[in-house]
Amino acid sequence: MNNNNLKLSNILMAQLNPISGDVEYNKNKAIEAIKKAKEKKVNLVVFPELFLIGYPIGDILTRYPYIAKQAKKALDEIANHCKDIAVLIGYPEINTDKFGKPYYNSVALIKDEKIIKSIRKSLLPTYCEHNDYRYFEPWVDEFESRIFTLNGVNYGVIICEDGWNDFDFFEKNLYKVDPIKEIIEDIDVLICPSASCTRAKKEQLKHNMMKHCAKKHSIKYIYVNQVGANDELVYDGLSRMYDEKGELTAMAKPFEEDLAIVNLCDGGKINPLPKGLELTLNSQKEFSLDHKPDLERTYKAIITAIKDYFNKNGFKQAALGLSGGLDSTICAVLLADALGAQNVYGISMPSKLTSNESKNDAKELANNLGINFLEIPIKDMFDLIKDKFSGMFDEISKNWCNRYTNSYTNDNIQARSRAMILWGIANEFGALPIATSDKSELYMGYATINGDMSGGYAPISDVVKTKLFALARWMNENRERKNAIPVSIINKPPGAELAIDPKTGKTLLAEDALMPYEFLDEVIWRIENLNQSKDNMLEQEFLYEKKNKIDKNTKLNWLNKFFKRLNTALYKWYIVPPGPIIDGRSINKTEYKQPIISNIDYSN
Amino acid sequence: MNNNNLKLSNILMAQLNPISGDVEYNKNKAIEAIKKAKEKKVNLVVFPELFLIGYPIGDILTRYPYIAKQAKKALDEIANHCKDIAVLIGYPEINTDKFGKPYYNSVALIKDEKIIKSIRKSLLPTYCEHNDYRYFEPWVDEFESRIFTLNGVNYGVIICEDGWNDFDFFEKNLYKVDPIKEIIEDIDVLICPSASCTRAKKEQLKHNMMKHCAKKHSIKYIYVNQVGANDELVYDGLSRMYDEKGELTAMAKPFEEDLAIVNLCDGGKINPLPKGLELTLNSQKEFSLDHKPDLERTYKAIITAIKDYFNKNGFKQAALGLSGGLDSTICAVLLADALGAQNVYGISMPSKLTSNESKNDAKELANNLGINFLEIPIKDMFDLIKDKFSGMFDEISKNWCNRYTNSYTNDNIQARSRAMILWGIANEFGALPIATSDKSELYMGYATINGDMSGGYAPISDVVKTKLFALARWMNENRERKNAIPVSIINKPPGAELAIDPKTGKTLLAEDALMPYEFLDEVIWRIENLNQSKDNMLEQEFLYEKKNKIDKNTKLNWLNKFFKRLNTALYKWYIVPPGPIIDGRSINKTEYKQPIISNIDYSN
Repeated sequence: MNNNNLKLSNILMAQLNPISGDVEYNKNKAIEAIKKAKEKKVNLVVFPELFLIGYPIGDILTRYPYIAKQAKKALDEIANHCKDIAVLIGYPEINTDKFGKPYYNSVALIKDEKIIKSIRKSLLPTYCEHNDYRYFEPWVDEFESRIFTLNGVNYGVIICEDGWNDFDFFEKNLYKVDPIKEIIEDIDVLICPSASCTRAKKEQLKHNMMKHCAKKHSIKYIYVNQVGANDELVYDGLSRMYDEKGELTAMAKPFEEDLAIVNLCDGGKINPLPKGLELTLNSQKEFSLDHKPDLERTYKAIITAIKDYFNKNGFKQAALGLSGGLDSTICAVLLADALGAQNVYGISMPSKLTSNESKNDAKELANNLGINFLEIPIKDMFDLIKDKFSGMFDEISKNWCNRYTNSYTNDNIQARSRAMILWGIANEFGALPIATSDKSELYMGYATINGDMSGGYAPISDVVKTKLFALARWMNENRERKNAIPVSIINKPPGAELAIDPKTGKTLLAEDALMPYEFLDEVIWRIENLNQSKDNMLEQEFLYEKKNKIDKNTKLNWLNKFFKRLNTALYKWYIVPPGPIIDGRSINKTEYKQPIISNIDYSN
Repeated sequence: MNNNNLKLSNILMAQLNPISGDVEYNKNKAIEAIKKAKEKKVNLVVFPELFLIGYPIGDILTRYPYIAKQAKKALDEIANHCKDIAVLIGYPEINTDKFGKPYYNSVALIKDEKIIKSIRKSLLPTYCEHNDYRYFEPWVDEFESRIFTLNGVNYGVIICEDGWNDFDFFEKNLYKVDPIKEIIEDIDVLICPSASCTRAKKEQLKHNMMKHCAKKHSIKYIYVNQVGANDELVYDGLSRMYDEKGELTAMAKPFEEDLAIVNLCDGGKINPLPKGLELTLNSQKEFSLDHKPDLERTYKAIITAIKDYFNKNGFKQAALGLSGGLDSTICAVLLADALGAQNVYGISMPSKLTSNESKNDAKELANNLGINFLEIPIKDMFDLIKDKFSGMFDEISKNWCNRYTNSYTNDNIQARSRAMILWGIANEFGALPIATSDKSELYMGYATINGDMSGGYAPISDVVKTKLFALARWMNENRERKNAIPVSIINKPPGAELAIDPKTGKTLLAEDALMPYEFLDEVIWRIENLNQSKDNMLEQEFLYEKKNKIDKNTKLNWLNKFFKRLNTALYKWYIVPPGPIIDGRSINKTEYKQPIISNIDYSN
């Protein structure tokens, strides 16, 4: 490798936002990028993994196999634009052998207006949100097919997961082959087209791993990631280059399309990470209530998710209920920021249990955000339905003897009346109603079916309550309009205002119905991050216990309640609307699957 | 191999119904079966695949890894019961190597109260409802570990998918290895513990494949399948033995637990298949409106699904709306048969659009079935809500200008008011409300969110409309109580009675809103079975076209409408409640995943 060759090598990291399955759209985006690259004297354009069909792909390749043919045609058309420029672009390659899965997850190398060859992915992630082995045959032969030379520089291509199997970096490895090891002797630059979605704690892991690899092999490492959101997955972009010492020499923007040019000798522009993200690895194996390091990423990821879900599905407007509580408040702010305040309608729908404070808070919030606002009391609906039910239940109990003495019927009439109103607006104006359930409450099934749980999108379904409190404060400090969220909303203890607590005579608080959120969120964290059983949790001290005196019995009761409620919540996870995956692990359907029938002994 | 040894070899096919994740329950079931086997002088007991945790397993092994330890403990306990008897039982084996997935999908061989060895699955199905490679490492070494000898007979064990890769039988193969081929020289009997769920056209494929294998290798073939349902998957059992000529010599019951003993020399009892099933391969690659051969299987599968979903989740009772239409009628019959008529409440909820005929039909049906019945008119709810909406919409349209001139708002108020009533009963009595959507209408998104689409279970969500008509007639002929379904319900054209057709002045019929069901169901069939594009379908003649004269333009319009509606229906597939997978391919979430954002060009 000679320095002059490096100096003459400009690479465009085409960090773009594709639409799943829309080959025509993605192809046009690619051609546009190639045209711009030519103007900027770029030698090589690198697109993200499977760019022509976008991630996630679901089962569309299996059910609509002609999409692979559309992609091949698009490749030919792209080739016509590749005079004097080389291109690496991801596409689903048809496997024509007698054996194996129907496709390869491939990257085409295009040069001199010709498709020179296809480079195929070896390691096929099939866990969490990844399903590669459902569709693709792994390619574990002829690793030299990954190598090509351009202007005297030798490049090696690995595709996403291919780069996640270093035998030193990981204690355990999912695969027996490390594709990098197989080609490293013969290359100067490693290129990794990728579609790797954002998750809590992932950026630091990714950074450390790539840095380790670049340094260990003394090689330049270029990583080109997808950006934007499709359904539940949000891609943060942050394409980048490391030099032979493992130093970061270029970084594209987070959560935005970016045609970022790097020079193999000089590097490129280093855009900053979302603030705080560099700190997120510190407490990896310990629960923390300090959510700060992850708030800007969380905010940006959800904004990206909402924008793309609405735009790509052809929606402009959203309607949501404003209860004056934290969840609907956070959703309102995020929607206003993502869609523009004028496109959001906040509806306050008080019942007789709704306090004046809640009503005022909702109104003030709407006012501060500049979103549209209406107050529609639901007393008339509630009274009519309750009355109607009363006679009906008496009639039914003549045949069925198992009527509950304490039921949630009245609570739910309120939540469902509100959803009825929002879906009415959806039907009449084409606006998308918003499900405001948060992750802590979804774990507990503390959400009403056909009520607050229902909607076209659920923006905060993967954010726990303690983090939402932190996010509220963060937004009050960091949005252009400061303190849009009334402090009273942040300070009041959460409660659905659907029922009276017989003990206090006031509306029931969520923490009394469930358990303290600080405790609840740690249970969730221990399940998702440490895979602990109830017995494990009983043995270990919670952060909550360090701050508050609770006896073993209280802790046991809370844990028992948690797992009991979890079991009945599984059905709700099955029907909850899509929402962006934000956390390290989630219960969102794109990632996690648990049978509803699943009598697990959680004790140990 | 000597005939005397065969004569002395009695094998119990322990065709049992496990609960997903419930190791304790499944273990106790196993021990009970072993005890009975000993009484009957059985030498070897064979349980279905992964029996100790049951299929489907979802992600429970990943999130709750201690389940694998529970299974290992259960195995030790089972061993204590294995004096003078051998046992093959499926369990998740922990992979302790540095490389690979965390588990093997294994079968333990227990003998003389000891766990002799584990036999590991090689071929890991990862498509449709199968996700094995998410959790398991394939075992493709040391095939001789699959062999063991008992009383002078040499057995070889393959696990489910291991038996589905014959190089002659299939034109294409998913895997490069055929585990049977690797061991066949050294064994007398092939044993296949399995968890293979029922699907249209699958029984004949399975039968032909096993028959082919037994004959080709001149070997005895014993297949032990799971039975019963967990969530969306229904296992039909039908465990069996073939002799060296490929002749069926024993067959356990369909859709029922069965401790079926076979003698290696004499075979065992041959229970009949569900009637008609032997005919289902005839028209495999051609669409047919003759659903008859598959009706008994369909009926039994749904009954099994409902029974297990209710029992295993701890529910006894169901509430459903009776519209006098086909879908709710079929659901009512199935529920009555599965749960007992006394456990079903049918609620007729007429609006002013509901005809007297519909009301009478609903009543007559309930009467014939002996289920509980109530008529609750919804006029009051509808009037109140409609009136409320009217003022609200005027207010909103001051800020938002995109109000539809023809909206579905009023249609949906009716459907949602009805769901409100059913969920009220659910809350008050612990009954499960039923979603009555059928497959044809779900494909078209012809179902109301928070309305008829909502419920705790959706029994017919994988049955197309033309098949439901056939099923109604079949049930009228084959149930003990003949003609429980009023003929007028079967004869009237489907329609939701939610809106008036301006052309006729009568309530809008579904086929006018959509397209003829015979045409619609063939489009679905062509997508699911032939993976055809719109252009393919335009080129080929539909059965409907053979019977009715339609011009090319009408066909094109219907197809365009189909794919347009399909795109907006994807969101509904995402939130539809679970229902049993019945058809060859489905849109049920346990099987099929398509991003909601997915702008596919369906034309070609």
